[in-house]
Amino acid sequence: MIDLRSDTLTLPSEEMRTAMFRAEVGDDVYGEDPSINALEERTAELLHQEAGLYCPSGSMTNMLGIAAQVPRGYEALCESQAHIVRAECGSHAALAGVTTRTWVSPDGTFDASMPLSMVSEPRGYNQVGTKVIEVENSHNFGGGRVADIEQLRILHSATRELGVRVHVDGARLGNTVAATGISLGEYGDLADSVSLCLSKGLGAPVGSVLVGDADMIAEARLLRKRYGGGMRQAGILAAGALWALEHNLERLADDNANALRIAEAVAATSPGIVDPTVVETNIVFFDFSGTGASGTAFAEAAAREGVRVTAMSESKVRIVTHLDVSDDDALKAGEILARVASDLLGASAA
Amino acid sequence: MIDLRSDTLTLPSEEMRTAMFRAEVGDDVYGEDPSINALEERTAELLHQEAGLYCPSGSMTNMLGIAAQVPRGYEALCESQAHIVRAECGSHAALAGVTTRTWVSPDGTFDASMPLSMVSEPRGYNQVGTKVIEVENSHNFGGGRVADIEQLRILHSATRELGVRVHVDGARLGNTVAATGISLGEYGDLADSVSLCLSKGLGAPVGSVLVGDADMIAEARLLRKRYGGGMRQAGILAAGALWALEHNLERLADDNANALRIAEAVAATSPGIVDPTVVETNIVFFDFSGTGASGTAFAEAAAREGVRVTAMSESKVRIVTHLDVSDDDALKAGEILARVASDLLGASAA
Amino acid sequence: MIDLRSDTLTLPSEEMRTAMFRAEVGDDVYGEDPSINALEERTAELLHQEAGLYCPSGSMTNMLGIAAQVPRGYEALCESQAHIVRAECGSHAALAGVTTRTWVSPDGTFDASMPLSMVSEPRGYNQVGTKVIEVENSHNFGGGRVADIEQLRILHSATRELGVRVHVDGARLGNTVAATGISLGEYGDLADSVSLCLSKGLGAPVGSVLVGDADMIAEARLLRKRYGGGMRQAGILAAGALWALEHNLERLADDNANALRIAEAVAATSPGIVDPTVVETNIVFFDFSGTGASGTAFAEAAAREGVRVTAMSESKVRIVTHLDVSDDDALKAGEILARVASDLLGASAA
Amino acid sequence: MIDLRSDTLTLPSEEMRTAMFRAEVGDDVYGEDPSINALEERTAELLHQEAGLYCPSGSMTNMLGIAAQVPRGYEALCESQAHIVRAECGSHAALAGVTTRTWVSPDGTFDASMPLSMVSEPRGYNQVGTKVIEVENSHNFGGGRVADIEQLRILHSATRELGVRVHVDGARLGNTVAATGISLGEYGDLADSVSLCLSKGLGAPVGSVLVGDADMIAEARLLRKRYGGGMRQAGILAAGALWALEHNLERLADDNANALRIAEAVAATSPGIVDPTVVETNIVFFDFSGTGASGTAFAEAAAREGVRVTAMSESKVRIVTHLDVSDDDALKAGEILARVASDLLGASAA
Repeated sequence: MIDLRSDTLTLPSEEMRTAMFRAEVGDDVYGEDPSINALEERTAELLHQEAGLYCPSGSMTNMLGIAAQVPRGYEALCESQAHIVRAECGSHAALAGVTTRTWVSPDGTFDASMPLSMVSEPRGYNQVGTKVIEVENSHNFGGGRVADIEQLRILHSATRELGVRVHVDGARLGNTVAATGISLGEYGDLADSVSLCLSKGLGAPVGSVLVGDADMIAEARLLRKRYGGGMRQAGILAAGALWALEHNLERLADDNANALRIAEAVAATSPGIVDPTVVETNIVFFDFSGTGASGTAFAEAAAREGVRVTAMSESKVRIVTHLDVSDDDALKAGEILARVASDLLGASAA
Repeated sequence: MIDLRSDTLTLPSEEMRTAMFRAEVGDDVYGEDPSINALEERTAELLHQEAGLYCPSGSMTNMLGIAAQVPRGYEALCESQAHIVRAECGSHAALAGVTTRTWVSPDGTFDASMPLSMVSEPRGYNQVGTKVIEVENSHNFGGGRVADIEQLRILHSATRELGVRVHVDGARLGNTVAATGISLGEYGDLADSVSLCLSKGLGAPVGSVLVGDADMIAEARLLRKRYGGGMRQAGILAAGALWALEHNLERLADDNANALRIAEAVAATSPGIVDPTVVETNIVFFDFSGTGASGTAFAEAAAREGVRVTAMSESKVRIVTHLDVSDDDALKAGEILARVASDLLGASAA
Repeated sequence: MIDLRSDTLTLPSEEMRTAMFRAEVGDDVYGEDPSINALEERTAELLHQEAGLYCPSGSMTNMLGIAAQVPRGYEALCESQAHIVRAECGSHAALAGVTTRTWVSPDGTFDASMPLSMVSEPRGYNQVGTKVIEVENSHNFGGGRVADIEQLRILHSATRELGVRVHVDGARLGNTVAATGISLGEYGDLADSVSLCLSKGLGAPVGSVLVGDADMIAEARLLRKRYGGGMRQAGILAAGALWALEHNLERLADDNANALRIAEAVAATSPGIVDPTVVETNIVFFDFSGTGASGTAFAEAAAREGVRVTAMSESKVRIVTHLDVSDDDALKAGEILARVASDLLGASAA
Repeated sequence: MIDLRSDTLTLPSEEMRTAMFRAEVGDDVYGEDPSINALEERTAELLHQEAGLYCPSGSMTNMLGIAAQVPRGYEALCESQAHIVRAECGSHAALAGVTTRTWVSPDGTFDASMPLSMVSEPRGYNQVGTKVIEVENSHNFGGGRVADIEQLRILHSATRELGVRVHVDGARLGNTVAATGISLGEYGDLADSVSLCLSKGLGAPVGSVLVGDADMIAEARLLRKRYGGGMRQAGILAAGALWALEHNLERLADDNANALRIAEAVAATSPGIVDPTVVETNIVFFDFSGTGASGTAFAEAAAREGVRVTAMSESKVRIVTHLDVSDDDALKAGEILARVASDLLGASAA
């Protein structure tokens, strides 16, 4: 079975396990876990930020990144399909009391003028002020699209004047780096905080690191305890994550290439459901709207043929390539999905 | 001084005061205030809904309307300039834990396809489901625009199938009714809940009524107590509101006409800052973007000439006509604002 | 029907209605309502505090008093039967995120050493710090007991050193003043904030005033808007409240005397269910525990005889005297309740 | 250095690390991690409950145990020094909106009549109903005291009739089992939910398991995702925890014995600060109140002599024995602490 449901499924390798086995650990709630400390420092360094905070999930790093920078009753702006508003149980509102307004970018690309035109500078005490603009890079539900660096520069520059901060959801920032050749540090320079996931394409078993300035991270550290994210000898996990940062960043280019390969294979038989020219990273969406076929049926048929994919809705199917999908797997998955799509569309048309 | 800052400024008339003086009252927390009960029933009847709930403010009726229909961590969709996300202190998130996504309608008009394309039907337990679509009618920060009844019909019909509810912020629904000739009941038929403000154009001193089905109102009644909105002998106020519903609904047409009159007067000298053809109700925005002049300067100059207006931002000024602005006041305000605008733009251009 | 369920039931008199009819009003959200401003100033002055904030309910003034002085995740201490933890829908936690610990005073009296021994000064970042000690004076569910002024002095003095603030729930502080002869100002001197209810014994139709230092009240004013308590021309109500402060404070002594009269009447026939020596203000509890009779049955029997009372639980019944209970009413109610109690206990014993 | 600050400091052994190295893992957010599943099932089985949920911390299992059983605005009752109200950042209120009332047990013992006399069955819609009674067993800030099984039986039986649930904070329930010889299952039989910590005395690096009925655990699982506690291949950690459950439960008796040994050593020289007869598990408090000496000074002096302890306040010092404190360490620590105490008290007396 080739599993393309998500890159969260990646399993730790023997070498990563060995690094974990040997990890020096301590009580991180007391700040005494050397592996955690090393991971936090290394991640901050890579992203050109002052400090880092290791958390059990990317949802938590995003939530804390928002909560530490946006007071209750103030707002964050983000794209309407951003993971923080679509797939984190509404925690920014439900727990942190942060309100959101969204701009709409149907193709997942990023245009800085959209959030910038929405920034609110309150003139009355009932008005909601904008504190953070969030950018997801690459953009999961936007089809894995990369946020253009020029637009990020415009955003960064304008937000300096407006007194608004920029939070980057870097769940898959490594895939962006692999696609553009622009370094983590260059992306970090244009942000006030970044959530970098270690448990997706990078292949570490657990966790995500939030980076930002020291004050913000100190505040996030307090909040992490309140949210129940204060772990003890989690250096076991951090050692795996450090190993991943050292060894698995560059190979994300393979995942990107494999995603494109699959997209092209499917487009060859069924051009109406996918456009390979918009595949920039390790995510591909197949869109069955208007074809008469259903995404659910496609996912079921693909699973019968040995490829697991995710039906995000009745019409949309997502595949994600990752560490545990080899080039051969991708080739094979492309063939299978192309055939399944072609059969399904043929049947619908008939 | 002609005060065009807001229609919340309206003062109770002698007759309304007399109605309040004579009000039969009781303890509304025990459900024993006959004037409150009458007001709640009358408002529900006018809006073709089962039940009503009187609250101390429109912010509270909107908050309870949202909170009673959207569980914590679920979402409401609304336009990006909607009052609920811009001017209610973020209470839907900060207190009720409800997350929001917004569509963007720069001219304030309502197109049902926008929210409908955003509705989320979660497929995973981390995903945020859409429970309510909110429509503000007329749309305050959208320039007092009226939501087209055909679009509301499309919205209502589609939401029946999607299992999504429709909340109408009717802070100024009376002005919409005056503009379109469509009754409150016809608008109510297309909504699951409506917040109707009594303290703006209608001229009652305090309060707003939330209407909806009996179960939802029962839930909102519990929440009203938690939020501190359970008042005792508030029938004093309700009697004024009942008087307003009986006597002040039809005259909102005068406010609409006066707003248009002022817009036309200003457009005659300064066509670049206002387009009278988009003035549908009692609100007019003057937009100084790109003129070199500032909204703040305009507001200050107007105040010196005897007209108070609100600078919503550096570039945008809002005026609102109401019960305490006579036709003569509007005529005079139009002349003054036209002259002030013309002088200011002339000075900027010079 | 003599209604002893609560002093919230009091109705505005003809003179109070006249004061409301004549009230000068404005938009209080803009700070422009002269009657509200006068009420806030007058209440602050009476309680020796800097500033005041008028709210639609006592639940809201307590909630804002807590929320403005206790950050989310910090704690307030109070007695285990305090109104804020028993009868305000848990709003301090549910909305303001404030945690509570309670001391237990079964007879409703106040001993400062109890809260003082519980104050938490955190030594770790996970520990919850104490920010406010709340005292309800008189203590509703504690049987209307008065907090001893000497104990309040000890509390005030100790909290100055500990950096903890004192909030007084003065829902019935007027009844305490009537009982002790100690002025509102003397009680106010020993508190950082006081919530004074105008709609209970004082007889105003609606509202409560929170008083405290200017910074705290400014913060509470912002929060009032978020909670939906920002009213417009509420000076109508404030004028009634001002009238009440001027005319109805001293007469609360009558309510206290009437409560004692009723307690003594019932104790004469049924000494096991009430001890008149603990009746200090306008509240009396009858306790049927261990008698075989039920409070619910007592309440129903009393209602059939023309006296309405509240069964707080299966065993406890509360009566409250107030403005609309005359001396004759109290005499008659005493006779009726004594007879009903006697009959009921006789039947249970039989 | 002998570190007695907390049993959270325990480090994973070589054998535990080996178990982790070999762990079979998967994506637990998808429910596909076999080690997590095995740990959850095993813990539920041990505690005679239907289902389990692995979380990154004991704070999270307690928070979710409360949040899944107490709706927002309802209450949990607990002892005034319970960890949930003292040392979890107020999360039950700050995040879950749950209010608390506490009973006061200065010596840390558990008397079921205390919470039972406080249970609230609301008669009005503003009243706060009791949903959960929480018992911490053993009781950390209560001096490691064990809750008497007879009292737990009374509590369990009474709560069945009242419709109230019982949550046990079992951060150190293993130490209780070691002290009483009563099994985990017997304690589990008397609870509706239990939070069992794996990262304290049991020595696993990270985590805690919440157990309860299947519906409650399903609800807690959703909430875990919202709070950011959904981890991916956390089976690495779970394997360590499973190893700990298998190998480290019985040896907790050693920790209990070592705590007593230290208490007795100190009592021999300084009987005023500790009473060994109340030492039931692995926690000892030294109380310097009224001695003239300070807990802070004691902690600093002890550290200079090679023993780390925690000053909980100016007067109270806590020591905790654990897996990484050998019998010899305990002997040595007892000698050192006895000498340090004796010197300090001598100096204070002088």
